[in-house]
Amino acid sequence: MKDLTTDDRLMTKEDVTTLILIAKKELGLSWAEIAAKIEMSPVFTHSAAMGMNAFPNDKAAALVKVLNLPDAAKPVLAESPTKIWEQAVPTDPCMYRFYEIVGVYAPTLKALIEEEFGNGIMSAIDFEMSVARVKHDKGDRVKIEMSGKYLAYNAW
Amino acid sequence: MKDLTTDDRLMTKEDVTTLILIAKKELGLSWAEIAAKIEMSPVFTHSAAMGMNAFPNDKAAALVKVLNLPDAAKPVLAESPTKIWEQAVPTDPCMYRFYEIVGVYAPTLKALIEEEFGNGIMSAIDFEMSVARVKHDKGDRVKIEMSGKYLAYNAW
Amino acid sequence: MKDLTTDDRLMTKEDVTTLILIAKKELGLSWAEIAAKIEMSPVFTHSAAMGMNAFPNDKAAALVKVLNLPDAAKPVLAESPTKIWEQAVPTDPCMYRFYEIVGVYAPTLKALIEEEFGNGIMSAIDFEMSVARVKHDKGDRVKIEMSGKYLAYNAW
Amino acid sequence: MKDLTTDDRLMTKEDVTTLILIAKKELGLSWAEIAAKIEMSPVFTHSAAMGMNAFPNDKAAALVKVLNLPDAAKPVLAESPTKIWEQAVPTDPCMYRFYEIVGVYAPTLKALIEEEFGNGIMSAIDFEMSVARVKHDKGDRVKIEMSGKYLAYNAW
Amino acid sequence: MKDLTTDDRLMTKEDVTTLILIAKKELGLSWAEIAAKIEMSPVFTHSAAMGMNAFPNDKAAALVKVLNLPDAAKPVLAESPTKIWEQAVPTDPCMYRFYEIVGVYAPTLKALIEEEFGNGIMSAIDFEMSVARVKHDKGDRVKIEMSGKYLAYNAW
Amino acid sequence: MKDLTTDDRLMTKEDVTTLILIAKKELGLSWAEIAAKIEMSPVFTHSAAMGMNAFPNDKAAALVKVLNLPDAAKPVLAESPTKIWEQAVPTDPCMYRFYEIVGVYAPTLKALIEEEFGNGIMSAIDFEMSVARVKHDKGDRVKIEMSGKYLAYNAW
Amino acid sequence: MKDLTTDDRLMTKEDVTTLILIAKKELGLSWAEIAAKIEMSPVFTHSAAMGMNAFPNDKAAALVKVLNLPDAAKPVLAESPTKIWEQAVPTDPCMYRFYEIVGVYAPTLKALIEEEFGNGIMSAIDFEMSVARVKHDKGDRVKIEMSGKYLAYNAW
Amino acid sequence: MKDLTTDDRLMTKEDVTTLILIAKKELGLSWAEIAAKIEMSPVFTHSAAMGMNAFPNDKAAALVKVLNLPDAAKPVLAESPTKIWEQAVPTDPCMYRFYEIVGVYAPTLKALIEEEFGNGIMSAIDFEMSVARVKHDKGDRVKIEMSGKYLAYNAW
Amino acid sequence: MKDLTTDDRLMTKEDVTTLILIAKKELGLSWAEIAAKIEMSPVFTHSAAMGMNAFPNDKAAALVKVLNLPDAAKPVLAESPTKIWEQAVPTDPCMYRFYEIVGVYAPTLKALIEEEFGNGIMSAIDFEMSVARVKHDKGDRVKIEMSGKYLAYNAW
Amino acid sequence: MKDLTTDDRLMTKEDVTTLILIAKKELGLSWAEIAAKIEMSPVFTHSAAMGMNAFPNDKAAALVKVLNLPDAAKPVLAESPTKIWEQAVPTDPCMYRFYEIVGVYAPTLKALIEEEFGNGIMSAIDFEMSVARVKHDKGDRVKIEMSGKYLAYNAW
Repeated sequence: MKDLTTDDRLMTKEDVTTLILIAKKELGLSWAEIAAKIEMSPVFTHSAAMGMNAFPNDKAAALVKVLNLPDAAKPVLAESPTKIWEQAVPTDPCMYRFYEIVGVYAPTLKALIEEEFGNGIMSAIDFEMSVARVKHDKGDRVKIEMSGKYLAYNAW
Repeated sequence: MKDLTTDDRLMTKEDVTTLILIAKKELGLSWAEIAAKIEMSPVFTHSAAMGMNAFPNDKAAALVKVLNLPDAAKPVLAESPTKIWEQAVPTDPCMYRFYEIVGVYAPTLKALIEEEFGNGIMSAIDFEMSVARVKHDKGDRVKIEMSGKYLAYNAW
Repeated sequence: MKDLTTDDRLMTKEDVTTLILIAKKELGLSWAEIAAKIEMSPVFTHSAAMGMNAFPNDKAAALVKVLNLPDAAKPVLAESPTKIWEQAVPTDPCMYRFYEIVGVYAPTLKALIEEEFGNGIMSAIDFEMSVARVKHDKGDRVKIEMSGKYLAYNAW
Repeated sequence: MKDLTTDDRLMTKEDVTTLILIAKKELGLSWAEIAAKIEMSPVFTHSAAMGMNAFPNDKAAALVKVLNLPDAAKPVLAESPTKIWEQAVPTDPCMYRFYEIVGVYAPTLKALIEEEFGNGIMSAIDFEMSVARVKHDKGDRVKIEMSGKYLAYNAW
Repeated sequence: MKDLTTDDRLMTKEDVTTLILIAKKELGLSWAEIAAKIEMSPVFTHSAAMGMNAFPNDKAAALVKVLNLPDAAKPVLAESPTKIWEQAVPTDPCMYRFYEIVGVYAPTLKALIEEEFGNGIMSAIDFEMSVARVKHDKGDRVKIEMSGKYLAYNAW
Repeated sequence: MKDLTTDDRLMTKEDVTTLILIAKKELGLSWAEIAAKIEMSPVFTHSAAMGMNAFPNDKAAALVKVLNLPDAAKPVLAESPTKIWEQAVPTDPCMYRFYEIVGVYAPTLKALIEEEFGNGIMSAIDFEMSVARVKHDKGDRVKIEMSGKYLAYNAW
Repeated sequence: MKDLTTDDRLMTKEDVTTLILIAKKELGLSWAEIAAKIEMSPVFTHSAAMGMNAFPNDKAAALVKVLNLPDAAKPVLAESPTKIWEQAVPTDPCMYRFYEIVGVYAPTLKALIEEEFGNGIMSAIDFEMSVARVKHDKGDRVKIEMSGKYLAYNAW
Repeated sequence: MKDLTTDDRLMTKEDVTTLILIAKKELGLSWAEIAAKIEMSPVFTHSAAMGMNAFPNDKAAALVKVLNLPDAAKPVLAESPTKIWEQAVPTDPCMYRFYEIVGVYAPTLKALIEEEFGNGIMSAIDFEMSVARVKHDKGDRVKIEMSGKYLAYNAW
Repeated sequence: MKDLTTDDRLMTKEDVTTLILIAKKELGLSWAEIAAKIEMSPVFTHSAAMGMNAFPNDKAAALVKVLNLPDAAKPVLAESPTKIWEQAVPTDPCMYRFYEIVGVYAPTLKALIEEEFGNGIMSAIDFEMSVARVKHDKGDRVKIEMSGKYLAYNAW
Repeated sequence: MKDLTTDDRLMTKEDVTTLILIAKKELGLSWAEIAAKIEMSPVFTHSAAMGMNAFPNDKAAALVKVLNLPDAAKPVLAESPTKIWEQAVPTDPCMYRFYEIVGVYAPTLKALIEEEFGNGIMSAIDFEMSVARVKHDKGDRVKIEMSGKYLAYNAW
């Protein structure tokens, strides 16, 4: 990791992420525990902690308190991020599998959404997601639930 | 669509997909109805009908019967496909939104799977998925559920 | 252009686009005139005629009547399209200029939308657009208006 | 953000952008307020502050005064920038939506401009744009207006 | 070359280009001679004959006459083309050299245009170009002249 | 800009470019004036100053004198550069227009060169170029002249 | 290599790799010897030492002991890595040959796996690999063995 | 599949592959059985049947006999192929896993080969490979063995 | 291979290549033999026969005679080709090795050319090449010789 | 150039290259002279000095002596490099010409090698190359000779 910024005015989401990871390690907290303490979901908490989403102001304040972050981190956590991913196709196997699922099933998701709802899409903005463990005899399973608002195409 | 092949020995998954789409239109069936008739899920039924998955032999036979497809279609439906998508990043908005969700949340899914299960991934092979409509006051929502077996990395 | 399909069951949006262009030329109609006849905007009419949007059923019927298209074209015009563009960066100068505007101004649009509305985006689905000519002494100008619903990011 | 340059001769547009963002935060000004103080539009003000456009000399001087920037920032603000964007296809959802609009509608904009004006394009140089909020019962809307000079292709 | 279209309603710029090349060969005319006969420059004549520019209506008519093309070619020659090049970087050595010149000298052209004219660009639309042979002792030289209108960036 | 190197043995073309830009600003010289002082063309002078060409030894010495550069800059200015451009397609509008001109007209330049000279190319090495302002009633124009030696393909 | 981090809280897998390489050189150990000392295979040991796999906790502790690494390295070695490779197609000849083997033989591996096992894949997660030298008269050979669990596609 | 060529002089490897696949289906043979009949390995037999390798002349003759192919297929099977794969990164999951293994482990293979053999590579030309099923309590495994000649870099 | 064109006016270099390959097979000639008969080098003969170079008129006539090609092939063989290669990085192993040699050694070739000749390049136009077999105890070697005119950069 | 490393344990091939270039300049030696002093070819010497090849141990020692490099450079010079080139297609004109030669002639080299040797390739590993000046009346020429061992494809 790059050195921590010493000038608070130059603190970025990347700096705050570094501070969160250090605090998380020192306090021995899991993402689920941090999320519980600020009363948000683990998915959103991790994502916003990584700088890919913006915390609501009160949640930013709560996180700063829970992890003893500097005050200057608060507005940074609440800023709208510019969401950038460098790899159009992720190489990490755990991440690639989700890319692969989209590659194989996106035409199917499209067809079934259109059949059920009409001409439109599932929103990725008015959206939420969870991850859970499901016990299974032949090996536990990862269960992912997504919920996104249906948006109909406008015709004018 | 390209012209239908007249030589059965040259019939491909693409040809069978064309025949399925014509039959589906003429019979006025939805994907959900076709799926119900062959007792499979709509997601798998559509995906295999599009040539992105292989029907088990009995299901291939059932589909041929339900849609009055030629017999030569049966082994083609049961063949293992080579799964190809041309666009590394899909342009269709409905499909892109799923790519975007992966872009934004893949690091989060990875972190939470590792926190809960250990060093490993969610399988995209021992995997299933469903799509459903959820009523909501501010507009109905698309609910997607994925379930994949957790696979631990081997260390040797 | 490719030869016209003679088997109605195989008619695609691409075929219908060809039929529309032929009819438009023979009838000597402009896009604005066609749009007026079916009581839709020129932007949406052209886009759906090109196969990049789906006509509502009544408008599909109206267009078939206005341009004397075959009946088989009606359901094709109303089908949800898969929106594909081959060139990630368009080479045609008229189209490139719009790409360039997005390249230069997208960060600005993002900043001003966030400043005014909060953390969210302008929808490209619940969206409409118009093009108009504005007289000007130093040369007439193209005026483009876009209107998209503001969608706030969900935090959960 | 990178450390601020201490040698004025090496000050770049990127440095000045950092200084502007710090000053904006400390003074608690919005882009609209800064734009009003220097009597320019918010779109141009933000874009030039980000280093994607050049301020006219008097506006550069006004901005330096309003935000208490060092004098060395003035000529840097007025320099012609080299406009670079790293991502041919932007990943940020708010920015991507504009890319998507161009992908879907550029052929339509081209066709309607040619129908109305003749063989030519809308300039992206002799160009201006605004963003506004429009109240709406089903949720407020973002309104974007673009105006660019029509340029006819030369034939020689 | 692909077979010639027999249905005039489906004639494209690509078909007309094929017809022009056949006629040119049979009549034994050079591009310079064809250009002279229709009183346009060789550069524009070749470019429009290749489908990368639109002939003015009278010039389209003249070309049809000079080369004995079918009447259906006239409106096709006058249509606005969609200018597409497949290779972002051309491989043909003669074409690559021009790409290389742009790669090496574009920053210089930009700097000198800005120094002389101010913040703006040279138009590629209100533009013309010629190619000529210049005798030289150490080997004749290709002389290319470009003239494009200076366009100043708007600031608003 | 990056900090200036203090170890002369590590001085690079990039360092010298920085020194040239600082000196140019402090002395208030234009590229045309610098070029005149060292008796070279503005195009070559700018290009070599940017590190995209190598100055002849005497010109390197002249430039060092005119701009009061350190002696260590002299051999660096005369070194053969490795010509690198990062963007296969430049995004800056002023630079993109030249790329566009090549995209549209390279096949035409190739055809006319071959018609006039035979099977070969215009050299980009034994090459020179100038930029000039041409007065015009409807707005001044940029005039660019290129001259490159014709090279015939060898057949053996 | 970049400078070593002095703040243990910021230590990354990249830092630990650097420390391992230094220790390996100073102790004069081969990868095979290091692997033997921690009772793992050379392939896994090297891969995890490079930060492309995670050591089990006891092996991380063993490696720290064998190579006299700082204690802070232990949890870093046991962390799940994000596996990233920059070059989609590796340029190094030794690495490229493996890419080439996949390019040429992947369709064959797929066909033979499906013929023998059914519709499914070889896991790259429940996977192991070895490299060995095989004596041969005409020059020794590299023998690579891979073993991955067969995973059947789910049909639901 | 494309229609079969009727002119023997135009028969290509692609045509022969089609003929092989038809014959294989009609004769109900597996790749392993075909390979046994011509006394080659299944990997090489499949690969050469797909047109990615050249059969020795006697094996080409044997295959023609075993599968009742036309005589014109014999020289085509023995021709050196131009090995082309369209997807730099394969999308099919079964094929992608091998790409992923190379992405993760290529640096390790390189390091261990160099440690054992010296500065050089494993040949992909003087190379062979096999695929086998290995029984396993927790699920059978795919075993792949590669053997390639070590080639030392020349230093001169 | 695609079907042969029956309309001579539409004959392309690709058609002629097909005719050459058929004739070469039927006459049982090697490239070296064909080259000898028309008194050109094998490299140039093959390259021009593939449509990547233009035969001088007399050589085109000679080739037509030697291979009994139709007269319409003569001007096609003498036409300047547009040299296109689809794969920026060739996948065929034999072709890739040459790409690899350029990747590894191009900086070296550049440095040694500049050291010996000055600031310039080796021409790829005034260029020739040969391929030969060299006997060697440890296995015969391929010897390739290239000769290209040195071209000095112009400074003006 | 980046600053020189002061910690010998972190010295990389890149650092050593910098030291070599400084020493070469201070001693006023050409690559040919350095090569002669260590009794290797100029091509290999430059390439290994640039970090694209590994010096044999005795040659590494010789180079350290000739150029007065620190002892720590010796093992670094003898390490196997990871050969990386960033630009799949080089932009520098001198380097591009070699890429172009491969683009145009690789199919020809492949065909002639196969005709002469059989189904196989020229090795890029058991390989050597030289560059020389050849006097010529119409301008001196660059002569490049490559020699690579022929490797036959294995069939098994």
